Amino acid sequence: MPELNIIYVGKKPTMNYVLAIVTQFNNHVDHIVIKARGKAISKAVDIAEITRHKFIQEVKYDKINLETEVVHSDRGDSNVSSIEITLKR
Amino acid sequence: MPELNIIYVGKKPTMNYVLAIVTQFNNHVDHIVIKARGKAISKAVDIAEITRHKFIQEVKYDKINLETEVVHSDRGDSNVSSIEITLKR
Repeated sequence: MPELNIIYVGKKPTMNYVLAIVTQFNNHVDHIVIKARGKAISKAVDIAEITRHKFIQEVKYDKINLETEVVHSDRGDSNVSSIEITLKR
Repeated sequence: MPELNIIYVGKKPTMNYVLAIVTQFNNHVDHIVIKARGKAISKAVDIAEITRHKFIQEVKYDKINLETEVVHSDRGDSNVSSIEITLKR
């Protein structure tokens, strides 16, 4: 079974996530999944594109999934879109 | 050749784009491409997910492409991520 790592995109700067991914690929991980919800989706796409174009050219998109998740909060349930980008070296 | 329509996501409210897409599918268009750049990428994913979940359940994702585009402006060239989501009825 191939090693698989998940990166959750939050409020840190874009380059923090890029460097985490590059480090993992350089440590012989062959699949990485980038997950983000709501407004962080744009940042997830930036992270994937910067990784591919500036750092590891042979990384390819293995799978891109879009989903809707339900978020429970004090003000009730709400729907939020999410993305899962699987990168493969 | 199948009919193909392109929706460019900008600053209008999300539901404007959703309704434009639903209208086109109901007028016998069978493929629609949603295109967005930068921060509008999150909105593009919302538009696709709302169309599928709330309006036309049989719509599927045919293809999702992520790219980097170069934007030319007074302050020089800069890179911006983009998404192309192809919906198929």
